[in-house]
Amino acid sequence: MKTQLSALDWAPEFAQGYVKDLRVRWALEEAGLSYEAVLLDDAARAGDAYRTWQPFGQVPAYRDGEVEMFESGAILLHLAAKSEALAPRDPAGFAKATSWVIAALNSVEPAVQNLVHLDVFYAHEAWAKARRPQAEIELSGRLEKLANWLGAKDYLLDRFTAGDLMMATVLREVPDLHAYSATLDRYLERCLARPAFERALDAQMRAFRAS
Amino acid sequence: MKTQLSALDWAPEFAQGYVKDLRVRWALEEAGLSYEAVLLDDAARAGDAYRTWQPFGQVPAYRDGEVEMFESGAILLHLAAKSEALAPRDPAGFAKATSWVIAALNSVEPAVQNLVHLDVFYAHEAWAKARRPQAEIELSGRLEKLANWLGAKDYLLDRFTAGDLMMATVLREVPDLHAYSATLDRYLERCLARPAFERALDAQMRAFRAS
Ligand SMILES: N[C@@H](CCC(=O)N[C@@H](CS)C(=O)NCC(=O)O)C(=O)O
Ligand SMILES: N[C@@H](CCC(=O)N[C@@H](CS)C(=O)NCC(=O)O)C(=O)O
Repeated sequence: MKTQLSALDWAPEFAQGYVKDLRVRWALEEAGLSYEAVLLDDAARAGDAYRTWQPFGQVPAYRDGEVEMFESGAILLHLAAKSEALAPRDPAGFAKATSWVIAALNSVEPAVQNLVHLDVFYAHEAWAKARRPQAEIELSGRLEKLANWLGAKDYLLDRFTAGDLMMATVLREVPDLHAYSATLDRYLERCLARPAFERALDAQMRAFRAS
Repeated sequence: MKTQLSALDWAPEFAQGYVKDLRVRWALEEAGLSYEAVLLDDAARAGDAYRTWQPFGQVPAYRDGEVEMFESGAILLHLAAKSEALAPRDPAGFAKATSWVIAALNSVEPAVQNLVHLDVFYAHEAWAKARRPQAEIELSGRLEKLANWLGAKDYLLDRFTAGDLMMATVLREVPDLHAYSATLDRYLERCLARPAFERALDAQMRAFRAS
């Protein structure tokens, strides 16, 4: 069975290139694994059949000959267990890469998304304006610690891993990352310069251009 | 080497019993693995030495004879790979359990924490009052889909897994869960009735009573 990944057949312009199947496409490209995208429209995503694959009606969901699963983070870890391109094979190294995948999702992404939601979904609400300074401070605290960890290293560990992949997709959504940290801005650029990222982004955008 | 878990030596009353080392204590109890808690005060958490173990200066961090890692979600997945008590051994079952651990962290927790933060940290801000209805709607949408998935099942999959453990620690923080879903309320009760949860909670609270 060919590896399958669910994705959107259409997205509003601000979301194009940022839909979360991108993470999995990127990981598959790093690992050199081929896949086919299953493009869904809104009705298909909201349908009962898809809910057995992705209970929240979101993308991505994933299946290969062995497993059927959902959540970009979980899929990334499944692929990391399969491919050395995404994480070291030794348990100590694999555990560290896992830590960074989850740190991106659960220690950095919430702070980033708080801010993004204020700007994108609630821009015209008076409360959003009042809330923004505090959200910026929270994000700034997280990013400072992340930048301290990174220091002069190229990647979060001594090589590129799924942790960097996930972190880069999270940092990419920070409005004006450079204003928070030049270190992180360079780090992000380094991650996004990987050919596998470009192929993944291209594949996502191609589906939108076709629709 | 004995398995070590970092935890707080003190917490404000509202946080006692909710500090995130609880998840890992619970998982260790389910797996029947012994451990020692490394209790940290604020200065130790903020220090450079600890940052090499937990880059954000938070708890929990974890080490055993094989690995050193951080993020409660990552530690849970490491333990799930070691112990059948936390996830099925077959790849398909393990992948589903992984999906639910991440869904708890990345699809449900952010919506819960948005609301908790409004009530706990920003209760006196005017913007928090204005923001609350929308945050409730977002949470409610997520919880409805979760309840639909659960239906009449006892657990998210056909047995208890690390996914239920993580989900229960997330749902436990929802203000008035019953008002959102009686199904989820009963599910939470079922999870928290497990003897391993009680032992974990007891161990966290014991440290606070001693301090
Ligand atoms: N935690 C999920 C989030 C997935 C997610 O947010 N998917 C969005 C696209 S980026 C989606 O499907 N949105 C449509 C909807 O929620 O109805 C993951 O990482 O897989
Ligand atoms: N994503 C992290 C979050 C850890 C976390 O929030 N820890 C809190 C206690 S519940 C903490 O250490 N707070 C003290 C601080 O942030 O300075 C995890 O799940 O391990």
